[in-house]
This record gives sequence, C-alpha cells and structure tokens, in this order.
Amino acid sequence: MRILDKIKLPEDLKSLDIQELNILADDLREVITKYTLSNGGHLASNLGVVDLTCALNYVFDFPKDKLIFDVGHQCYAYKILSGRLEEFKNLRQKDGLNGFPKREESPFDTFNSGHASTALSIACGMARGGESGQIVCLIGDGAMTGGIFYEALNDVLTLDKKVIIIINDNNKSISDNVGFVNDYLKIVRKYGDEISYMNIETLNNIDGHNMNDLIDKFNYAKNSDKSIILHVVTQKGKGMPCAEENPCKYHSVGKPTALPCYGQVFGETLIELAKNNKDIYAVTAAMAEGTGLSEFEKTFPDRITDVGIAEEHAVTMSAGLALAGKKPYVAIYSTFLQRAYDNVLHDVCLTRLPVVFCIDRAGFVGGDGETHQGLYDVAYLGSMPNMSIYAPKDGQELKSILKWSQDYNLPLAIRYPKSEIATDYDNCMQIEYGKWEYIVKGGSKNVLISNGEILSNVLKASEILKANGIDVDVVNARFIKPIDKEMLSTMLDGKNVFIFEEYISSGSVYAQTLEFFNQTNHTSKVYGVNVENKPYMVASRSELIQSASLDVDSIVNFVISKN
Amino acid sequence: MRILDKIKLPEDLKSLDIQELNILADDLREVITKYTLSNGGHLASNLGVVDLTCALNYVFDFPKDKLIFDVGHQCYAYKILSGRLEEFKNLRQKDGLNGFPKREESPFDTFNSGHASTALSIACGMARGGESGQIVCLIGDGAMTGGIFYEALNDVLTLDKKVIIIINDNNKSISDNVGFVNDYLKIVRKYGDEISYMNIETLNNIDGHNMNDLIDKFNYAKNSDKSIILHVVTQKGKGMPCAEENPCKYHSVGKPTALPCYGQVFGETLIELAKNNKDIYAVTAAMAEGTGLSEFEKTFPDRITDVGIAEEHAVTMSAGLALAGKKPYVAIYSTFLQRAYDNVLHDVCLTRLPVVFCIDRAGFVGGDGETHQGLYDVAYLGSMPNMSIYAPKDGQELKSILKWSQDYNLPLAIRYPKSEIATDYDNCMQIEYGKWEYIVKGGSKNVLISNGEILSNVLKASEILKANGIDVDVVNARFIKPIDKEMLSTMLDGKNVFIFEEYISSGSVYAQTLEFFNQTNHTSKVYGVNVENKPYMVASRSELIQSASLDVDSIVNFVISKN
Repeated sequence: MRILDKIKLPEDLKSLDIQELNILADDLREVITKYTLSNGGHLASNLGVVDLTCALNYVFDFPKDKLIFDVGHQCYAYKILSGRLEEFKNLRQKDGLNGFPKREESPFDTFNSGHASTALSIACGMARGGESGQIVCLIGDGAMTGGIFYEALNDVLTLDKKVIIIINDNNKSISDNVGFVNDYLKIVRKYGDEISYMNIETLNNIDGHNMNDLIDKFNYAKNSDKSIILHVVTQKGKGMPCAEENPCKYHSVGKPTALPCYGQVFGETLIELAKNNKDIYAVTAAMAEGTGLSEFEKTFPDRITDVGIAEEHAVTMSAGLALAGKKPYVAIYSTFLQRAYDNVLHDVCLTRLPVVFCIDRAGFVGGDGETHQGLYDVAYLGSMPNMSIYAPKDGQELKSILKWSQDYNLPLAIRYPKSEIATDYDNCMQIEYGKWEYIVKGGSKNVLISNGEILSNVLKASEILKANGIDVDVVNARFIKPIDKEMLSTMLDGKNVFIFEEYISSGSVYAQTLEFFNQTNHTSKVYGVNVENKPYMVASRSELIQSASLDVDSIVNFVISKN
Repeated sequence: MRILDKIKLPEDLKSLDIQELNILADDLREVITKYTLSNGGHLASNLGVVDLTCALNYVFDFPKDKLIFDVGHQCYAYKILSGRLEEFKNLRQKDGLNGFPKREESPFDTFNSGHASTALSIACGMARGGESGQIVCLIGDGAMTGGIFYEALNDVLTLDKKVIIIINDNNKSISDNVGFVNDYLKIVRKYGDEISYMNIETLNNIDGHNMNDLIDKFNYAKNSDKSIILHVVTQKGKGMPCAEENPCKYHSVGKPTALPCYGQVFGETLIELAKNNKDIYAVTAAMAEGTGLSEFEKTFPDRITDVGIAEEHAVTMSAGLALAGKKPYVAIYSTFLQRAYDNVLHDVCLTRLPVVFCIDRAGFVGGDGETHQGLYDVAYLGSMPNMSIYAPKDGQELKSILKWSQDYNLPLAIRYPKSEIATDYDNCMQIEYGKWEYIVKGGSKNVLISNGEILSNVLKASEILKANGIDVDVVNARFIKPIDKEMLSTMLDGKNVFIFEEYISSGSVYAQTLEFFNQTNHTSKVYGVNVENKPYMVASRSELIQSASLDVDSIVNFVISKN
C-alpha cells in the first residue's frame, strides 16, 4: 500500500517522518502526472508545489487554518491530500473535480480562485473580518503580474493583522515580473527598522524541495505574530524530466488535435496580413501559445508584446498603440477579457480607437468549469458604445474578418471557441459591415438564425428537419452587433424566426431582434435559445453545448415543438 | 492686460522670463478658482499643478510632444494654456469644456483620461507604437494606488523606449493616501538621494512650485535618452489658503444642496444598522466623502476600509470579508465599479457571497461627461449569475432595502443617482424579494412602469395625462433583477405597458419583460424608453435626463403618441 493511500485527511500526514513525507510527495507526483495527462489540466506547476503542499499540511491545520491559492491551478496535491484521492480520477470531467479550488467541493477549499492575482485581497478581507485560523496565501506561477496583487500588497503592508504570504518562485523570469515589489522590499529591508509601519519580515531563497527546510520555515511563520513573506524557490515540472526541461510545454496539457483550431487560423492569418501591413501589432496577456500567437512571436518578435497576466494593461497599452497609429490585435480568452472591462469601455470604446479583440475560448470551455466559461462577452461588449461584435462560423470567415478589420477604424470584437475547424480556409470572402448571410433560402416560413460554431449544428438540424418534412431557411448572423435590421425588416418579417446562440441572452441577437421587432410592429414570431445565465460546471465542450440545448438533436426538437 | 491673455498657444509662453511665468501662474490660479467655484469641478488638485504645467509648456512642445494626464482632472491649467481660455468659462456646462482631457476637444489632449491610473499604459503603447515626440506622463493625486499602474510600471522598466514619468506627490489622494505607495513616497522624500528606482533614473524631491527648478529638471529629462522618473512635491490647493489647509474639502467643489442626497441617506442608515449589527462593514475606494460614508468613518473607524483608488481590491477584499462572516457594503460610483467587473462576477457572484454594492452616481451624472455616466451598471451586473439589482425611488425605499439586505445572503446591487431626496424617510417599508409595487391602480389599460428617481417623473406625468383624459396606472419596478414575473403575467397581461428607465436597454426591465412576454405568449403591447447606448457629453443631470426623453413632458408626450 502506498503511503498516499493511508492519507485520508491532512491530519494523517502529521505523523509521518521526513523520509515518508518525501515518499508521499513522489506518490502524489505519480498520481498527478497520470490523471493530468489523461484528463488534461495543469501539470508542470502542480508537480512543482507537491513538496511545498506536503510541508504546509504538516505544519498547518487545514481547514481550520485557511490556504488561499493564487493561481488556483496549483491545487492538485492539496485536493488529493484533503480527502479527494478517489475523485481525482475524475479531474475536469463532468460531475468530477474542478481543477481550481472550489468552496462547494470541500471545506478545505477556501476560495474559488479560477482567475489569477486575487489571493492577497481575499486574505486581507478574511484577516480584517476576524478569521480565527492562520491565513496562508500560496502565490506564484505568474500571479504577481496582475495589478490587483499590488493593490492588495498596498493594503496588507499596513494592515494590523497577520497574513502569511508564500511566494512560489518557479522560474527566473519571475524576478523580472516582480521588479517593483523586489525593489520595494529592498527598501523595506534597508530602512524597515527606522520606519516601523512598513516592517514585514521576509525569508528569502527557501528550497521548495527540501522538506526539512520547508517545515522549519513554515513553523517559524506559524509562530510569528506578524505578517511574513516566505520566498520559496521551486522547480516547475519537478520529478518529470521532460516537464522540468520544458515547463511551458507542460504548463497545461490537453489532448492533441488533428485539425486546426480557430486560434491557429487566427495566428496564421495575422502573420500573413502582417507581412503586407507594417502597422499590425499583436498583444497578449501571458497567452501567446494558447491564443495561437507562437509563430507570430517568432516571425515578428518586434511586433508582439506579452505583458504577462495583466489584462488591464494589455488593453489600455493597446489603446496607446492605436493612438500612435498602429493596428493592435489583442488576443485574449473571453473570461480573461472580463478583467479589462473598463479598459475596453473607457480607454477603447469611448475614445473610439481601432483596437481589435480576438477573443478565444468564447462560448463553452471544456474542462475548466464555471470560472472559465466564455458566455458573457456578448453581454458586456454589446453594451459598450462604438463596439461591434462578429462571430465567424469557420476558418474562412475568421480569415475574412481579420483581413477586413485592417481598415475598420473603430473597436471590433471577434469571438470564437477553442474548437477544431474542418472547413478549408484558403480563400477570403467579402465582408459587408453589419450584414448577415442568407445561407439556405427556400422561402420557408421557418428561418433559423445562428452564428459561430453553433451554426454548423443548425445546418445539420436543417437537413434533419427537411427529412422530417419541415422546410427551414438558415441565416448566418455573423455580426452579433450591429444586427442586420434591413434583413430582419424585409426578408424575415412575418416568419417564424428561431435564434440559436452560444452566449447568454442579454445583448444577444435574440434580445436585439425582439427589441427591434417590438419597435417596428413586426408580425414575426421569434423563438430564442440562449445559454442560461447560470454557472456551468466542469464538463466537455460538447456536453456543455448539449446541456444548453444547442446540439443538433435539441435544435431539431425545439423547431418541431413550435411547428 | 494680464499675461495670461497674451498666451494664445503654449508657444507664446516660451518667451516669458521666470518672473513672468510666476505671474502667469497666478493668473491661471485666479481663473481656475473663479470658474471652478462657479461651475463645480476639481479645485485643489488643479491649483497644485499650475506651476508645474507652466514649466512643462515652457520646456516641451505640445502637441508635438505628448502630455498624458493621470488623473485627468489635473488638466485645467493645461487646457487654458492650449487655447481654451475663453471656453474655460463653460467648463463642465452643456456644450462646454470637459473637465478631463479629451481628444475630440483639442489636438493638445492626448488621451481621454476620465478614470485613473491609465497614463503609463497609454505611454507604453504610444512609445512602442513609434510616437515621434517626447512622451510625458503627469501622474498623481491618487492614481498610483490603481493596480494597472503597477502592471504598466513593470512594462516601462523593461521597455526599450523613452517615457518621462512625473510623479506629482501632493501627499494626498482624493481621501488620504493609503498603504505602501504613500509609505514609498515618504521614504523617497526622506531617503531620496540614496534610492534609485531599479534601472531607471530618478530625480527626487523637486519643488513643484519653484519655476527655475522645474524648468531645469524638465530640460534634463527632455535631453536624457532614457526613461526617467521625476518626483515633484506639490501643495494641493496652492495659492488658496483655505484649500491648502483642507485639500479634501476643496478636491472637488459643487453647489451645496439643501436636501439630503441618496448617498447621505445611505450613510446615515448604515450607521443606524451598524449599531445593532456588528457584522456590518463598509468599504470604499477613495470615495468615503462622495459616497456618504464620512460620518460612518468617524462612528466606526474600525469597521470601514478605504483602499484608495483600487476598485478591484475593494471588491475582492469584500469577498474575503464575507468569507469571514462579515456583511460588507461596498460604496462606489457606478462608473468606477466598471473597473472591478471580473471581481464582482468571479469573486462575488460565482462564489455566491453576500456582498452589497451601494452604487452612487448611477444614471446620468451632471458635469463630468461621458466617462462618468452611470448608464451601464444594469447591463453588466444584470448579466451576472446570482446578482440582484434594486433601484430605490426615494430615501424610504433606500433605507428599507438596506435594512432588508442585512439578512439577504447573495450578492445585491442597490443603485441610485447623485440627487436630492425630498421625501421623508424616517420609516421603513416591507420589502419582498423580486416584488414590484402597484402604486397607482385604477384599472387603466395603460400601465407606466419605472424605478428610481425617474419614477417621480412618471408619477407627475400620470397626473398630467389624467388631466388630459388619459388614465394610467403606475408600477414601481424597484427590483430591476429579478423582474416580477407574477405581476407581469397576471396584472399586466393584455395592457399597454410603458417602461421608463435611466440606463441602457441591455438587461433592462424592458428587455427582460419583452423576453418574458415573448416566451409566455403575452397579449400586452410593450413600449420602452431607455437611455441610448451612446456617449452622453457634459451637461447637467436634468439636461441629460431631458435629452434621453425621461423628463415629465417627454413621458407625457410619449404616452399620448401611443394612445
């Protein structure tokens, strides 16, 4: 029997000796590697914090004490040790474990930290609110580039409450990323004695893979009566040679895809366009690889900026690029663009700057759960003045809008999912601003409207419906905003209009169409199927699409039920 | 003739000697004081940067060189010197000058900076984009607490382009400066000569009111070939003794109001409730006075936190307070809550924490222009799962929902304008979650629905309509989300429903009602009047309400036109 199998709860771990703890760490690495490789997830970073997590559980009494992860994806060993070894097999699967800490899952999970840089703020609030246990933040893996970290640091350094801050320093670039805070701490260390209000103790260069050292330092921090910073150096990918050598590649693993994804088409196209358009500039917030910009980075290293996990700066810096006459393309995930809402509204839209947002992971996102679903972008971008939104149904449409966007001089959002594209996309098509495309036109009284990837489900559904004796027309509403009022008022008036969309209804084509028809006294009957405004838990993309009734069968059944 | 009157453009200023520049500065202070006191606006901070602005214009060649303000409200002297002396009389008036830099207004205005902490990001983008002139950021008055400032600072420090960063250290943010930035500046003031900020040259303790010194240092920065930080110490309120003594009071001046505003009722009520409820906790982001929390701060100094201009931290820290069992009330302006969109969505709503957002300056905001209109909160909050939104029509309703909110255990937003309240608000009324109130009930086929302050216009309109022979019922839709589906499907079915709302239509009661009636095959006719999704420029609150057809006459005419 493995030592790991004897650990039902963290308290069981406290009776182990150092040698056993090290064996336990190896057991954990084995389990983490096995299921992360099979289920997808964050591998290298989790391997790096295994020893540290064992030592934390040895010293502290979770969940009486509170451990707050930042970023949350470093929590695998902690989940396993806190009674979730069995469930770990279902990591990131439907009805399985979330890959991030989640309060609803276990009392051991302090806070749902799917997005980065929040731990210190949560810690400040809990400390201020009178939390009785020790408050421990485990911060690392890029979380220290996000601005809210500094806002919170500002608070914690003058807060008269104790917080233990563990900085997990897992690569050399982190020192660049946290230049400012290092500089500040240098000053604090130099003048701290003279300036008592800034006094925070710091223990530097703790070996993150030396169990003895970790336990010593954590005990010291536990017994301190003041806030303390522990700077722990870890090896990302620890224990897996290929991941140690190439931690970026093994940061997040998933199943390899045979066909190109939207992101890849985006990246390829941007390179193509940039060759002839010297103004094109790419911006990413720590997601060059995830958004398809790796090749662009190699081809045009001087025309891309990775600002780190700092979405606000990514967007406002792009506004600055546009002010200087460049054409910035901000490649970002839907759920992370949320972090720059006001930067998009205030710095880009109200200022009327031609920044293009290339929004990957729009719509349902497989594996990551409710904190990563890209369901809100249409609602929040649609409510901003001067913003237009486009959803390509395939590679050709994505390529075409990118080409078209070069000369468009206002803000534009292009949204697409993490999903494979089968269609050939060599040629471009004509884009006319705000115009929809009548794809299947048979004069039927039923017209099915959709866009993006869901449109292919609608097209398949239209075939099945036809085979069942129900003729339907199909429209590609590729511009989500503005809607094609001309088509609505001429060709779609008096029809049964069915609208299927992979985002919530607020600001959707359905909502806009209802409003437009209401104002213009239409005689059409409009039916909308949108994603519900509720959290969607961990599942695969296709399971999620099905749960929202946007799969082919559901579309067929919905149309039949209304005929 | 004043020296100021001879300055048509900044170039005219370059031939003045130091004595004349000082006289010019006095002229500017006189003009700024006069029109800011009469029109409202930011007084103390503008008086503080007059000398600095003269020196900048003496040394640099704007608009060839670029000056980026942060925060933008320090721009008055700059606007006057760049050919806008005449227009300054109409500062913050309809069709007059905006109180913040605005590209559309003048080529001298580099960027529209209504919100804080963005200058360094814009500068990074412009420098990276190949801007040919010198790029000068004037940063101060609290802008250094916002996280994006640090995201950008991290970028600037490794950017191979030149940016001149002037830190205007007036030892005050809007409220007192907070945390480590303030500490940092204190250290700089004390140990300045020994400290250099990382790999960037820094000139410390420049006297912001010594024209010679300023010109010398600005010339040095201009001729440097690398980025440089100039730490300039200024006196907020300079030249106006009462403002020098009490810069907070004179930070922003406006006309005194005879009646209490919503914010004041909020503040008073929270004190009342906090006396009996030890869990109540108030949070503000540099706006204790503006949101009505000054008295609360005096009464319960241990139960309020001002995090400075750091809205993200304010919200996520409040999530931490809620995790520790406290009941946090985040008092914030509608337009500034935008800066914490993802913190509300990810850290509060998805995590189901009982944080109450008390949103002041919701709806139209007089004087500040398009960057400060509170028109989007219903759209962006309404699209978040687990969030409810309430709009009180008067002090009594505000007081009642605050009392009720103590036991509500999910996120809640209460929105109200900066506006006086005439109604007595001693007593509380019963609140039933999600229920509307049928105020005027005569069985008419016309039902007018509204909420918040606009409801009083609707009530006045109903009297006029009655006098004109058109009977109308009136409903108070105080819960914007969720809407009262029971009332809609029973009492309002088959009626002519008119909905008047002081926010854009996305996510509005109108949009939700249309969708609900559409799903349930209603026979009602629904008419909606919402604020248009476009920028609303500087004007008074009543002018703005009129321009959106939400004044009494427009409501009367709209209902008549549909009858």
